[in-house]
Amino acid sequence: MKINFIKPVYAHCDLPCGVYDPCQAMIEAKSLQAILTKYPGLDDHAKQRAIIIKEERAELVKKHLMILWADYFKEQHLEKYPNLHDLFWQAIKQASKVKQSLDIENANLLIQKIEEIEKIFNETKAS
Amino acid sequence: MKINFIKPVYAHCDLPCGVYDPCQAMIEAKSLQAILTKYPGLDDHAKQRAIIIKEERAELVKKHLMILWADYFKEQHLEKYPNLHDLFWQAIKQASKVKQSLDIENANLLIQKIEEIEKIFNETKAS
Amino acid sequence: MKINFIKPVYAHCDLPCGVYDPCQAMIEAKSLQAILTKYPGLDDHAKQRAIIIKEERAELVKKHLMILWADYFKEQHLEKYPNLHDLFWQAIKQASKVKQSLDIENANLLIQKIEEIEKIFNETKAS
Amino acid sequence: MKINFIKPVYAHCDLPCGVYDPCQAMIEAKSLQAILTKYPGLDDHAKQRAIIIKEERAELVKKHLMILWADYFKEQHLEKYPNLHDLFWQAIKQASKVKQSLDIENANLLIQKIEEIEKIFNETKAS
Amino acid sequence: MKINFIKPVYAHCDLPCGVYDPCQAMIEAKSLQAILTKYPGLDDHAKQRAIIIKEERAELVKKHLMILWADYFKEQHLEKYPNLHDLFWQAIKQASKVKQSLDIENANLLIQKIEEIEKIFNETKAS
Amino acid sequence: MKINFIKPVYAHCDLPCGVYDPCQAMIEAKSLQAILTKYPGLDDHAKQRAIIIKEERAELVKKHLMILWADYFKEQHLEKYPNLHDLFWQAIKQASKVKQSLDIENANLLIQKIEEIEKIFNETKAS
Repeated sequence: MKINFIKPVYAHCDLPCGVYDPCQAMIEAKSLQAILTKYPGLDDHAKQRAIIIKEERAELVKKHLMILWADYFKEQHLEKYPNLHDLFWQAIKQASKVKQSLDIENANLLIQKIEEIEKIFNETKAS
Repeated sequence: MKINFIKPVYAHCDLPCGVYDPCQAMIEAKSLQAILTKYPGLDDHAKQRAIIIKEERAELVKKHLMILWADYFKEQHLEKYPNLHDLFWQAIKQASKVKQSLDIENANLLIQKIEEIEKIFNETKAS
Repeated sequence: MKINFIKPVYAHCDLPCGVYDPCQAMIEAKSLQAILTKYPGLDDHAKQRAIIIKEERAELVKKHLMILWADYFKEQHLEKYPNLHDLFWQAIKQASKVKQSLDIENANLLIQKIEEIEKIFNETKAS
Repeated sequence: MKINFIKPVYAHCDLPCGVYDPCQAMIEAKSLQAILTKYPGLDDHAKQRAIIIKEERAELVKKHLMILWADYFKEQHLEKYPNLHDLFWQAIKQASKVKQSLDIENANLLIQKIEEIEKIFNETKAS
Repeated sequence: MKINFIKPVYAHCDLPCGVYDPCQAMIEAKSLQAILTKYPGLDDHAKQRAIIIKEERAELVKKHLMILWADYFKEQHLEKYPNLHDLFWQAIKQASKVKQSLDIENANLLIQKIEEIEKIFNETKAS
Repeated sequence: MKINFIKPVYAHCDLPCGVYDPCQAMIEAKSLQAILTKYPGLDDHAKQRAIIIKEERAELVKKHLMILWADYFKEQHLEKYPNLHDLFWQAIKQASKVKQSLDIENANLLIQKIEEIEKIFNETKAS
C-alpha cells in the first residue's frame, strides 16, 4: 500500500452533513489482516478471542462500507462508475468470507476491494 | 488542516493485534464541526435531527479517544509525554462540551485537541 | 386471524445457517409509516420522541435490508434479477429520506420498495 | 410462495405507535434451530463461530419477547390469558437454555413457546 | 461516606455465573428522576437533549429489570412471591411511562417499583 | 440482608444531571471474578461461552470507568487526587488484562483498582 493514494483520503473530511471516509472500513480491514497474521502463533485462549474479535471487526467493515455505499454515493457517481454497486457487494461479501475462514488471503482480498473503493471515492472527491 | 501531518497517520495501520488511528476520532469530530456549521440554516425538523446526531457522534469521539488512550498508549509513552493523560481527559471533556452546546467553537477546540493527540501518536509511530 | 397463514411465513425461514426474512425490514417500515401518520396529532413532547424513534427505526430498516442484500442474495439471483443491486440501493436511500422528512409519502414509498424486494425474495425461495 | 399469505402477516402491523410482531422473535429462534442442526457437521472454526452467533441470536429472542410482553400486552389481555406472564417468562428462560447447551431440543422447545405466544397474539389482534 | 456501607452492597454480588443487582436499574431510574427535576429550568437545546437521554436511560431501566426478572429469579422465588411477574411487568411499564411524559411523578413511581423489587431481591439473597 | 445498608448506596445517586456510581463497574468486575473462578470446572462449550462473556463484561468495566473518569470527575478533584488519571488508566488497562488471560488474579487486581476509585469517589461525595 503506497502512501500516495492515502493522501487524498484525508482531504475530504469537509462534507456538508456527513463526513465519509473509506479509511473507517480500511482500519478495520487492516485489523482483520493483523489478527489473521498473528493467529497461527497464538495460544488456545488467544485463538478463541481472535475469532470473537474477527467477527466484530468484519461486521464493522460491512457497516462502514454500507454507509459509504448508501449514504455517500449518488446517482451521478453510478453513471461514471457503473460497477460501483457490484464492487461494494463484492467487498461486503469478502468481509463475510473473512468471518468464515482463517485464511489471511481473504483479508488481503478485502483490503484490495476497499482500495478499489478508495480510489473511486478519491476521484469523486477530487472532481 | 495540512496534508503533511496526515500522511503518517496511515503509515501505522500495521500494528500486531489492534490497528489504532486517531483519524477514527477525527472523522467524527469533523462531522460535529460540519453539523454545527450547518445548524443555523436548518429547518426545525432538521435541527432536531442534528441534535440527535450530535449526541451520537460526540459519543463516538469519546469512545475512539478512550480506546486510543487505554489500549494504544503504554508506560514508555507517558514518560515521554507526561501530559498525555490530561490531554486525553481534556479532549474527552471537550467532546462533552460539544454535546452540551450549539457553539461551533467547541467543535473547533475538539479538533485542535485531537490534532495534538495525532501529533503525539505520529511521533510514537515514527520512533 | 387464522393459524394457517402463519405457517407459510416461516416456510422461508429454513435456510442452512442464517434465517433471512424481508419482514424484519417491513415491520420497521410499517412502524415508520405509523409514526408519520400519528405525527401531526402529537403534542410537542411526543413529536420530539417521534423524531428520535424515526431515526432508530429507519436505521433498522437500512440494517435489515443490507443484511438481506449482502448475505442472502447470491450471484445466481443477480443474473435473474439484474436490477437487484439498484433496487436495494433505492430502498436504503428511501429509508434515509424517511429520516430526512416528515412526509408520510416517503414511508409509503419505502414500503413499496420493500414489497418489491419481498416479491423477488419469495420467488427465489419458491424456486 | 403466494402473495396472498404475506398480506395477513402485515395485517397486525397497523398498531398506533409501535408495530409488534412475534415473527421477530421467531426468526431468531429459527436461526438458533438452524445453527444447532448444522453444529455437529461443522469444523472447529465454524463451531466456535456458531457459539458466538448462538449467544447473539438467543439474546435477540429475549429482547424481542420482552418488548412484546412489556410494550404490546395490556391489562385486558392478562385477564383473558392469566398465564401470559408465565408463558413469556418460560419462553425467555428457554432462550437462555439455548445459550447454555448444544442440544437442539432446547431450540425446538423455544419455538414451541413462541408459537404459543403467537397464538395468543393473533387472537388479541383478531378480537 | 463510610466504607462499611459499601461492603454489603457487594455482598449480593457473589452469585455463581452472573452477578445481579437491582442497583443497575435503580441508578438509571435515579438519573431519570434527576433529568425530570431539572427539565423545567433547562434552555431549549438542553430540553431536547434531556428527552434523548430520557429515552436511553428508560430503555436501560427496562433492560436491567428484564435481565433480573428472566435470569436471576427462579421457580422457588415465584412460589414465595406470587406477584413477582406482575411487579416486574408494572415496573417495566412504568419505565415506558417515564419515556412518554415529562411528569416527574412517573419517575418517582418507577423508583418505588424498583424499591419493591430490591426488597424481594434482598430477601432472596439473605435466605 | 438489611434494608439500612441499601439506603446509603443511593445516597450518592443524587447528582444534578447524571447519576454516577462506581458500583456499575464493580458489578461487572465481580462478574468477571465469578466467571474466572468457575472457569476451570466448566465443560468445553461453557468454557467457550465464558470467554465470550468475559470479553463483554470487561468491555463494560472499561466503559463504566471511562464515563466516571471523563464525566464525573472535575478539575478540583484532580488537584486533591493527583494520581486520579493514572489510577483510572491502570484500572482500565487491568480490565484489558482480564480479557487477555484466564488468571483470576487479574480480576482480583481489577476489583482492587475499582475499590481505590470507589474510595476517592465516596470522599468526593462526602465533602
